[in-house]
Amino acid sequence: MALSKKPVTGMKDILPQEMQVRDYVTGVIKETYAKFGFTPIETPCVENIANLSNKQGGENEKLIFKILKRGEKLNLETAQSEADLVDGGLRYDLTVPLVRFYSNNANSLPTPFKALQIGNVWRADRPQRGRYRQFMQCDIDILGEPSNLAEIELILATTTTLSKLGFRNFQIRINDRQILKAMASYAGFAEADYDQVFIILDKMDKIGADGVKRELMELGYSEETCDRYMVLFTQIEEADNGPAFIAQKLSDTLPQGVMTSFMEIIDSVKATKEDTFEIVFDPTLVRGMSYYTGTIFEIAMPEFGGSCGGGGRYDKMVGKFTGNDVPACGFSIGFERIILLLMERGFEVPGAPKKVAYLIEKGVEGERLSQIIAQAQEARQDGTQVLVVRMNKNKKFQKENLTKEGYTEFVDFYKESLKS
Amino acid sequence: MALSKKPVTGMKDILPQEMQVRDYVTGVIKETYAKFGFTPIETPCVENIANLSNKQGGENEKLIFKILKRGEKLNLETAQSEADLVDGGLRYDLTVPLVRFYSNNANSLPTPFKALQIGNVWRADRPQRGRYRQFMQCDIDILGEPSNLAEIELILATTTTLSKLGFRNFQIRINDRQILKAMASYAGFAEADYDQVFIILDKMDKIGADGVKRELMELGYSEETCDRYMVLFTQIEEADNGPAFIAQKLSDTLPQGVMTSFMEIIDSVKATKEDTFEIVFDPTLVRGMSYYTGTIFEIAMPEFGGSCGGGGRYDKMVGKFTGNDVPACGFSIGFERIILLLMERGFEVPGAPKKVAYLIEKGVEGERLSQIIAQAQEARQDGTQVLVVRMNKNKKFQKENLTKEGYTEFVDFYKESLKS
Repeated sequence: MALSKKPVTGMKDILPQEMQVRDYVTGVIKETYAKFGFTPIETPCVENIANLSNKQGGENEKLIFKILKRGEKLNLETAQSEADLVDGGLRYDLTVPLVRFYSNNANSLPTPFKALQIGNVWRADRPQRGRYRQFMQCDIDILGEPSNLAEIELILATTTTLSKLGFRNFQIRINDRQILKAMASYAGFAEADYDQVFIILDKMDKIGADGVKRELMELGYSEETCDRYMVLFTQIEEADNGPAFIAQKLSDTLPQGVMTSFMEIIDSVKATKEDTFEIVFDPTLVRGMSYYTGTIFEIAMPEFGGSCGGGGRYDKMVGKFTGNDVPACGFSIGFERIILLLMERGFEVPGAPKKVAYLIEKGVEGERLSQIIAQAQEARQDGTQVLVVRMNKNKKFQKENLTKEGYTEFVDFYKESLKS
Repeated sequence: MALSKKPVTGMKDILPQEMQVRDYVTGVIKETYAKFGFTPIETPCVENIANLSNKQGGENEKLIFKILKRGEKLNLETAQSEADLVDGGLRYDLTVPLVRFYSNNANSLPTPFKALQIGNVWRADRPQRGRYRQFMQCDIDILGEPSNLAEIELILATTTTLSKLGFRNFQIRINDRQILKAMASYAGFAEADYDQVFIILDKMDKIGADGVKRELMELGYSEETCDRYMVLFTQIEEADNGPAFIAQKLSDTLPQGVMTSFMEIIDSVKATKEDTFEIVFDPTLVRGMSYYTGTIFEIAMPEFGGSCGGGGRYDKMVGKFTGNDVPACGFSIGFERIILLLMERGFEVPGAPKKVAYLIEKGVEGERLSQIIAQAQEARQDGTQVLVVRMNKNKKFQKENLTKEGYTEFVDFYKESLKS
C-alpha cells in the first residue's frame, strides 16, 4: 500500500515560497496586460491528437504526452500502432490551442482580438536541471490586426510588465523574416536554401561571424556568396541606422513598405522614452518556429544568457484551421525563467500584510476559545493575516519557526486559571 | 489539413467575460485564505498511475484520463492490458496529490501546515449540461492539527470567502462520522451495515423520513430498529440544542470528548457573529468519501439546489503513503458552481478600471503614430486601460462594439492633413 511520494519523472511540486512569487508575477502580468486591452482566455489542457500532430509544432510534436482512449473506443487487440490507442494529448504550447479557440469562437470575439493566456504546457523532454516536463507559458496575441500596431502594442505591453517586475537593462531584439530573406537573396543564396542558411546564422552568438562563414562554406556555398552575406552584417553594425541602411541597400529585393513599417515599430517604442530597456535591430535574429511570416522579436536579459521570451507575426496559421488567413502576432514571455531569476535574487513579494500568530495553550476551550476565534476574525477585517494555532510545549522553538515564515507579532492565550 | 475547431469532447473554451469573473474569484479566494495563514502550493497535473489507483478515490478511479508510456517503455506487442501501456494519469481530485505532496515535502513544511490549492482536475464522466471533464477545484487543508482549531479555521475561512463574493443566507451543515455511527449503533444496526444504512440516510433530502424508513425495511432491517433510528432524528429536530441532546442521549456510545469538541466548533463559529450564514447541526449529513474519519461539513446555498462545497477530517490518509498517520482536515469549495451562480446573476467584476479606446485613422504613421503611442503609454500610468486600434471605415459600428466591451471613452486620431 506504500505509494510513490515523488512527483512523476520530470515534474515538480511547488512549495509555498515559490508559489507566492508565482502568484505575484501572475497578478502583475494580468493587471498590466489588461491595461493594454488584452483579455484573458483559457483552453482545455487536452487537445485532439490530430490538432497537435499537424506539423506546426516542429520537434515538440515528438514530445507529446498522449492520452489513452477510454471505454469501448479502446481496443487493444486490434490496435496496430500508437495512433490506434490515443485520441488526445496534453498541449505542448499555447499557440495551437489559441488558433483553434479563435476558429471556434471568432463570432463572439471582437476585431482585433487581444488574448492573454497563462497556462501549463507539457513536453516529454529529457529531464534536466531547471527544465521541467510541465511548465507555465504566458502568451499575448493579437488576431485580426494587419498593421504594425500589433507589434508595437505587444512589445510595449511586455516591456511594461517586465519593468513592473523590477527588470532593468534588458533588450528587445527585433528582425523581420522578410529582411532575413532579402539579405540572403542579395548575397546570392537560392530560396530553397534559406532555411539551412538561417539555421547556421542563428549560431552567430556562439560561433561568431567567422564560424558562420566557415560552416556555410562547409555546406558548399561559394566564398563569394558567403562574403557578400557577411559584409552586409558588418555594414549594418557600422551604420548609424541599421534599418535605414538596409532599406536603401536592399530596396530592390524588399517588398514595399516593409522597412517603413519596421522602422515605425522601433521609433514608436522609443518614443515612449522608457529607460528600463532598449529596442535594437538584430539582423542575425532567426527564431526557430517555421510559422513566422514577418516581424520576429526576442527578449535578452543581461542576468540570463539566452532568450527570456519572444514572438512574432504568423499570418498564415489561422487559415490552416479555417481556410481563411487572419493576421496574427504574438509575444510569449519566459514565465519559468522569470520566476527562476526572481527566486535566485531572493525576491520578496511587495505589499505583504502584517502577519500575527495567536498561540493558544492546550486546555483553552469552550467560551474562551470562542472569544479568541472572534477576536482573530475581527483582526482580519483590516487586512492583518492572523494564524490561529495551538501553543507547543516548546513555545520558543515554535515562535522561531513562525518568525522564519514571516510572522512578526505573537499573542499568547493561556488557560483562564493561569491568567488571573 | 482542416483541423478540428471544437475542444475535445466534454471540455470547454473559456471566453474573456467568464475568465474575468474566474480571475476575480480566484483573487478573492487567494487573498482571503491568506489572511487565515493558508499558503498556496501546486502539484503536477499528472500523477503516477499507481497513486491514482489506490482505492482512495472510489468511483473517480474509473474516470481517469490515462497517459501512454513513451519511447522504449511502450511495447505494444507485449502489452497484455491497459496497465502495461500507461504510467501516469491526470489527477481526478486535489486530495491524493496533496497527501503525496505532504509526504514528499514534510521536512520543509511548518506544523500545522495550512495548504491552499486551486487547480484543474479531470474526470472522464459522461458529458452533461454544466458538467465538464476538466474543471477547477479549490481546496484548503490543514495537516498536523489534531484539535478542532482545524475545523473552526477551515469553516471561517470558507464562509469569509463566500461572504466577500457576495453570497448571503447560506448554511454550513455539520455532522461527525462518529455521531453517525453512534446513532446507528443506538438504533441497533450492526457495524458491518453502517455504510449501507448511511447510503440510504443520505437520501433524506429527496425521499424524506418515511422514504428512508421504507428503504431500510426493504433491505430487511427490523421495524423496531428503523423506528428507533427515525425517532432519534425527530428528537434532534425538536430539541432546543440538537448536539447537547445527542451528547446526553448517546453518552454511553459516543467516545469521550467528541460532542464537547463538536459543540465548540459550532459555538466558536457562531461567536464571530457573521450574519451572512448560519451553521447548523445536520445529523443526516453523510458525505460519500470513505476516507473521512471525524467531522464532516457541507455548504448549502439557497440559490443552488444541492451542495456547493464540503469537506471533513481524514486522519488516516497520510499514513497510507508514509506509514505514519497525520491528523488532516480539509474544505473544498465548489469553484465551478460558484462561477456558474455568479455568471447567471450577471455578476460585474468590481473595481474595473476606466476603459478608453484610441481610434487611429489609416494613414496616420511615422512620427505622429509614435506620439500617439507615447500618449497611450502615459495614460496607462494612472491605471487607465487604453486600447489602441485602427479606425474602421464604419466608425460608429466600431464604437458600438467597443461600448459593449466596456469602453466608455473614445479618442479619435486623424491624419494631420484633415486635422488642421
